[in-house]
Amino acid sequence: MPGNSFGQLFRITTFGESHGAAVGAIIDGCPAGLKLSEEDIQPDLDRRKPGQSSITTQRSEADNIRILSGVMEGATTGTPILVIAFNKDAKSSDYNKLKELYRPSHADYTYELKYGIRDWRGSGRASARETLARVAAGAIAKKYLFEKCGTQFLSYVEQTGTIRTDIDLNKVTRKSIDGSIVRCPDKAISHKMLKLIEQVRREGDSIGGIIKGLIKSPPPGIGEPVFDKLPADLGKAMLSINAVKGFEFGSGFGGASMRGSAHNDGLFLKGKKISFSKNDAGGTLGGITTGQDIYFRVAFKPVATIAKQQKTVTKSGKTVLFSAQGRHDPCVLPRAVPIVDAMAAIVTMDHYLRQLSSAAGR
Amino acid sequence: MPGNSFGQLFRITTFGESHGAAVGAIIDGCPAGLKLSEEDIQPDLDRRKPGQSSITTQRSEADNIRILSGVMEGATTGTPILVIAFNKDAKSSDYNKLKELYRPSHADYTYELKYGIRDWRGSGRASARETLARVAAGAIAKKYLFEKCGTQFLSYVEQTGTIRTDIDLNKVTRKSIDGSIVRCPDKAISHKMLKLIEQVRREGDSIGGIIKGLIKSPPPGIGEPVFDKLPADLGKAMLSINAVKGFEFGSGFGGASMRGSAHNDGLFLKGKKISFSKNDAGGTLGGITTGQDIYFRVAFKPVATIAKQQKTVTKSGKTVLFSAQGRHDPCVLPRAVPIVDAMAAIVTMDHYLRQLSSAAGR
Amino acid sequence: MPGNSFGQLFRITTFGESHGAAVGAIIDGCPAGLKLSEEDIQPDLDRRKPGQSSITTQRSEADNIRILSGVMEGATTGTPILVIAFNKDAKSSDYNKLKELYRPSHADYTYELKYGIRDWRGSGRASARETLARVAAGAIAKKYLFEKCGTQFLSYVEQTGTIRTDIDLNKVTRKSIDGSIVRCPDKAISHKMLKLIEQVRREGDSIGGIIKGLIKSPPPGIGEPVFDKLPADLGKAMLSINAVKGFEFGSGFGGASMRGSAHNDGLFLKGKKISFSKNDAGGTLGGITTGQDIYFRVAFKPVATIAKQQKTVTKSGKTVLFSAQGRHDPCVLPRAVPIVDAMAAIVTMDHYLRQLSSAAGR
Amino acid sequence: MPGNSFGQLFRITTFGESHGAAVGAIIDGCPAGLKLSEEDIQPDLDRRKPGQSSITTQRSEADNIRILSGVMEGATTGTPILVIAFNKDAKSSDYNKLKELYRPSHADYTYELKYGIRDWRGSGRASARETLARVAAGAIAKKYLFEKCGTQFLSYVEQTGTIRTDIDLNKVTRKSIDGSIVRCPDKAISHKMLKLIEQVRREGDSIGGIIKGLIKSPPPGIGEPVFDKLPADLGKAMLSINAVKGFEFGSGFGGASMRGSAHNDGLFLKGKKISFSKNDAGGTLGGITTGQDIYFRVAFKPVATIAKQQKTVTKSGKTVLFSAQGRHDPCVLPRAVPIVDAMAAIVTMDHYLRQLSSAAGR
Repeated sequence: MPGNSFGQLFRITTFGESHGAAVGAIIDGCPAGLKLSEEDIQPDLDRRKPGQSSITTQRSEADNIRILSGVMEGATTGTPILVIAFNKDAKSSDYNKLKELYRPSHADYTYELKYGIRDWRGSGRASARETLARVAAGAIAKKYLFEKCGTQFLSYVEQTGTIRTDIDLNKVTRKSIDGSIVRCPDKAISHKMLKLIEQVRREGDSIGGIIKGLIKSPPPGIGEPVFDKLPADLGKAMLSINAVKGFEFGSGFGGASMRGSAHNDGLFLKGKKISFSKNDAGGTLGGITTGQDIYFRVAFKPVATIAKQQKTVTKSGKTVLFSAQGRHDPCVLPRAVPIVDAMAAIVTMDHYLRQLSSAAGR
Repeated sequence: MPGNSFGQLFRITTFGESHGAAVGAIIDGCPAGLKLSEEDIQPDLDRRKPGQSSITTQRSEADNIRILSGVMEGATTGTPILVIAFNKDAKSSDYNKLKELYRPSHADYTYELKYGIRDWRGSGRASARETLARVAAGAIAKKYLFEKCGTQFLSYVEQTGTIRTDIDLNKVTRKSIDGSIVRCPDKAISHKMLKLIEQVRREGDSIGGIIKGLIKSPPPGIGEPVFDKLPADLGKAMLSINAVKGFEFGSGFGGASMRGSAHNDGLFLKGKKISFSKNDAGGTLGGITTGQDIYFRVAFKPVATIAKQQKTVTKSGKTVLFSAQGRHDPCVLPRAVPIVDAMAAIVTMDHYLRQLSSAAGR
Repeated sequence: MPGNSFGQLFRITTFGESHGAAVGAIIDGCPAGLKLSEEDIQPDLDRRKPGQSSITTQRSEADNIRILSGVMEGATTGTPILVIAFNKDAKSSDYNKLKELYRPSHADYTYELKYGIRDWRGSGRASARETLARVAAGAIAKKYLFEKCGTQFLSYVEQTGTIRTDIDLNKVTRKSIDGSIVRCPDKAISHKMLKLIEQVRREGDSIGGIIKGLIKSPPPGIGEPVFDKLPADLGKAMLSINAVKGFEFGSGFGGASMRGSAHNDGLFLKGKKISFSKNDAGGTLGGITTGQDIYFRVAFKPVATIAKQQKTVTKSGKTVLFSAQGRHDPCVLPRAVPIVDAMAAIVTMDHYLRQLSSAAGR
Repeated sequence: MPGNSFGQLFRITTFGESHGAAVGAIIDGCPAGLKLSEEDIQPDLDRRKPGQSSITTQRSEADNIRILSGVMEGATTGTPILVIAFNKDAKSSDYNKLKELYRPSHADYTYELKYGIRDWRGSGRASARETLARVAAGAIAKKYLFEKCGTQFLSYVEQTGTIRTDIDLNKVTRKSIDGSIVRCPDKAISHKMLKLIEQVRREGDSIGGIIKGLIKSPPPGIGEPVFDKLPADLGKAMLSINAVKGFEFGSGFGGASMRGSAHNDGLFLKGKKISFSKNDAGGTLGGITTGQDIYFRVAFKPVATIAKQQKTVTKSGKTVLFSAQGRHDPCVLPRAVPIVDAMAAIVTMDHYLRQLSSAAGR
């Protein structure tokens, strides 16, 4: 299959370029009978949209989502759902001069290498604007999972540059996350992060960071060994997001220096129910969910687009100087939080549906 | 699709349990005309097999691979290749007492949760013995890619516990890797790692570590945005390996604290050819290979099986004490190196074939 | 995967309902660099659209196709192509009374059985209006294949009721097909068919028929044994079209009563090239194209919607009388010809791309 | 995906060549907890195996099936099931002289065209011996469906040459089918068919025929519009069987000459349950099962291998005479009956599992 689809039973296929006519997705496999309207999706898009705060790009897109199929009289019918947002404030002229050159650490060079052609208008398909479609699809998965299983997705910004929060996962709420412009639920740290991002912007530079992913009360027993283990699909989902360089779950890279006797999570009886002493596993064993919360970390590099002058080369083999003129985020993490949530929800939803088949022997 | 297949055009499906009759794979989609015999595969299996050194499990398996289809007169015919190794030294009796209890941090509990049943003999399908099949399939991909593109796979153990090498990637050779029992090409560090592993074994414990993955001279232009980016599929492949908790490529988690101006890799002209000043990207831009080497890191937790006594619970709800009696590795990393290489080769091969279709417009 | 996608490397996913906002498709996997605009697609849609002649439904839809992604400056970029036609003349009120009843031989009953809900407006997703999206996607495949391989798709109406043409396949041209309102290239027979269809309409009834599919100069060597043989995928494609009840290729059902000595197609040398004495095979051997023309037949039942009064039952368990009031075709075959061509082109295109990978050993 | 897998959630991948070491399949996605042993599979293989009667090839293969994974203590565990039969009586020497020539109407020419190489030993992968694997996989699906849903698969030979039975579908039993060497449940017609086949064999020729497929009491509500309609997948499954040239279901090609008023199946109330006046639909509406029996017809051409002398050409461009010396069936239909049943069961099983996900909104 070509690369623009994700998921097997809850399957999304996205389309659209940064400065094309529209961006959107077909969601195929959403069970029938889910109450759904644009109002269920729009809030998540609003968390991702540009221009929402002083530290995000000032491109002015309403990102109004429309559902063009698959829903009748306020409920899904089991047929493909098309969600679409038409582009409005697409200033291709901003990019005209970039037509001939390869921006450092952008996909310009590789898209041309691969396809022999590239859409040079605002990174075309390689723009993070594509993730709008993922957020819309994820909103549907989130709604279904919350109603069926009580599952919640509560990702937040854990680190920006070297500023980092160690907030207790149990204290994180959607409200505390969204109470912060940088989407860090730790007030003091959030303030420091904001200062850093503002400084980076003044310098014409960009900065990376880490998002902590959190899935509360996931359905137990989901994940399909040996290749489609839940963390494997979750990792792929995260690594497919623009600017992501790393993924770890549970103890992660830190677990590499631990001993087994310290790392092993104990099982014990809580009344008649099996319970775990801790959760270094991160919510899965052998790739299958235990029912404990799933937590993971996603590393984002600093975005490649910076105002500082850089040297690069053109298609015709000239060395040139250039500096980005477009409207960009100095730090993508605040807007990436809903993308992480969306992809986590899509993976969870897909595996929830797959488990129905795996459990069909009972 | 169920979870036991990986890859789209070079597609492997594995089968077999630790103490069942056999372990193996069907490889579907291997191009016809590749010279191939068991001798091309066996050396990689020998790198993975138990009992190869003083620090690996003493289970005695020859792991002799047989090819039962898809090859005629020493060449592939384009039809499915079945590779199989029959199990010999499977002492299920070692596991008899584990039938009723859930070992901490093993997949016992979740397999039963998911399937309602589990193969309790040596972890059944959840055993790393399954990776034998991946190594066999990977050997085929490695051979094809080396002959077609000169690509090489040179993963090694970078870290065990907190002992770590900073060896220059350009100095790593297959010989220096395999010259070390722990598969660390840095002699001095390798020696320290060996001491640590021996100590851990004496303590009846286990230890984790990090494997550095290295793909030299990968085919340029491979990787399928927006979901099947090369690092996304590579990450999934690694995260599907037993005991893996994290994956990062290029600058990885370290990139999260960098500024864009420092992180961006410059493009310049080397003669008439485009070249890069450095490789913090890790060999891909926008999910597509530049042609530069790909490097990545894979974090392994300490294996769950330890000789130390642990408390746990049984199916029937009793608390019990137990300690592993079977033959196990105190540190899986030396034997995991060929698995990482194999999965990296399978991903690269699959995307090499996919690119033929993406480039079909030219 | 859910059921709304077709193809593996040239992959279409369709969306939309008869009386929803729009109908369309994402085409993922179209090679970059193909010259493409709406003008390349519209003519095929015009062959399928309602209201084009006196014997087709008078629903008035312009079916104007728009391309919203994947094309820049007149050429495909290798990214997903969204094609969409907004619905205009959707008179749901025509269907209001059908909300509660199950029309005989329609999908009303089974959609509700399967999904627990159904879009009752003009058959919803089960309407043949969905095939508009297939025709649009097929137009792209047809253009690519004609430019790369000189392949042409020339299906026509062979039989309506019991009236049938035996026209020589070599004499069939697009012009002779489209010179006939019923899309039968045999003038005398076409006239008889027209009379029959007009009579059937006057009777408030409907009539079935057979379309002969013809693929001229297909790429040789395509088709993927053992399951994805070209005729198997072609057959599936045809059997997925509304109202289709049968598919045969080459000698088809007639071959069942032949002897091998008569059925076998001889090979001989034409100069230095291998040639065939005849083509009872229908253009493939072992599921792989020989390079000869492919021909096949597709049986359509009479459409279920008729003006005649019928008895049926309602959801609430009442027996009722009803007769269709909407605007319908007494015979769908003339409008189904471009659908057959489109699906044949999509299958051929998909297998053409797949063969690039199968041939990668050379 | 390459072409050797079939099904999505109940997914089989077959391997093996006629004169290679073995033939078999991995079945991935079989639900855990199904009681299963070799004894459940062998009887179906015995219906397909060579040498079972005077009119089948005398190649002597026991076709003993072994299960090498996925089953523990007599029950499936949810992991991949490997079924395998080792080849014994493979006389490649019979084929030695065919190495250089292309047999008429065989896949020799096209496999070489496609892959650049071919396994010339007894047709290699293109041999119907591959279907052994399908029958083994189908036996598992049949067992599951019978236990869960009471579904039965009762295909039989309806036509050989021009001799045809019109037996009432309700009178067909497994016993009456297997009471006939030609697998035609109509005694008088069976006798005539036998005479015909014996005569054809004496003439050194072969003969085709038609198998009627019958699925009794299929699960209602299965089939995934718009592309994976049940008859579309069923048709593909049948068209992937060696020598098949056509597929029709319900009224089939005969329906093409009917009027809608005659073809439409009426709905009426039988007590409080919805029932149908007849079943010209063949058990599905809009591609989804109604719960009525599914019936279909599969056309087989006469096998290409005949003893009569034929002229053909060699790879090096010479015209030669040859006649088949191997051991072959003059009519494959009796042995093809279990293959039709197996593929029908695999399709039904796959869609049964898929429906669990489609119905997940309730």
